[in-house]
Formats: sequence, structure tokens, C-alpha cells
Amino acid sequence: MSERRGDGEGPGVKAIVTVMLKDGVLDPQGRAIAHALHALEFAQVGDVRVGKVIEIELAEADADRAHAAAEEMARKLLANTVIEGFRVRIEA
Amino acid sequence: MSERRGDGEGPGVKAIVTVMLKDGVLDPQGRAIAHALHALEFAQVGDVRVGKVIEIELAEADADRAHAAAEEMARKLLANTVIEGFRVRIEA
Repeated sequence: MSERRGDGEGPGVKAIVTVMLKDGVLDPQGRAIAHALHALEFAQVGDVRVGKVIEIELAEADADRAHAAAEEMARKLLANTVIEGFRVRIEA
Repeated sequence: MSERRGDGEGPGVKAIVTVMLKDGVLDPQGRAIAHALHALEFAQVGDVRVGKVIEIELAEADADRAHAAAEEMARKLLANTVIEGFRVRIEA
């Protein structure tokens, strides 16, 4: 998992950014999965939504600064904030 | 979020299935994101891995049975278990 590192070495955290389409935005991939699950006789399946998860190793010991950096990455690159929302979790 | 429901109505849970490439499987999308983040001067970024998250509404009140069903869905449809691993979380 750590074949590449940023410029800083030493203690770090993992930022986990989850990007989902906003409520109300049609999710055709989720709908296709719901149909396929029904075809597999998972009758208990209701709505399905599909998103991305991006796990980022950060050479940053401070969790608050790691969280702020990951939010900036999500806004600038990882999420299309017109149609997508995101949440950030930091793991030690 | 709940315009479609399975056959069962009533109390339900949400199963959150996260599918990631296994360690050691090359993740070109993650590598591309790492490069893009470096270009945006996020020098603290190390390894990046990208996966899918599938949120499934289940008309199933029992968390253990919901977990077992979601694992079966992951094995049968959501993950390619040759190259991908998955984890399941149940939210009330």
C-alpha cells in the first residue's frame, strides 16, 4: 500500500473521502445494481446508491490539518460539488 | 432516496458495502489521483487507492441477517473477488 509516499516521511494518517451523488440526482448505476439484485432474488433490496471512496495516505501527523487538507482535495478534485456530496474520515 | 422499495415494507436498515482492489493489485485510477493531487501542490499525499461504495436499503429488521445478505450480494454481484476485497457495514 505504501510504495509511494509524499515528500514528508514519518508519522501519517489515512484520509477516507466518500463521494456520493446528492439526493435527488438520478443514479443510473445504483438503479442497475438494484435491478440486478432483484433478478438474483434479493427481494428485500430497496433503493441503491453508488459512490466512490478514495483512501489517501497523508504524511501529516495532525488529524485536524489532515481533515482540512482532505476536504480541500475533495472540493478541488475528487468531487463534482454541483451534483456530488462528500464526507471525510481520518484514520490514524 | 426511497422511491423504490423491495417487496417487504416496514423497518429496514442500510447496508454499506465498500469494494476496494486488493493490496498488490495495481490501481491506475488511484495513481492518477495521486499525481493530480501532487500537481495541485498537496505534497503530503502518498499512496491513493480508489474503490466503490454501494449503499443498499434493505427491508430487513435484523442486522445480522442484513449483514449476511449484503455479504452474499457482494460475493455474487458487487465485487470481483479475484482482484477485489469488500467490507460490509450495517446502519440502522
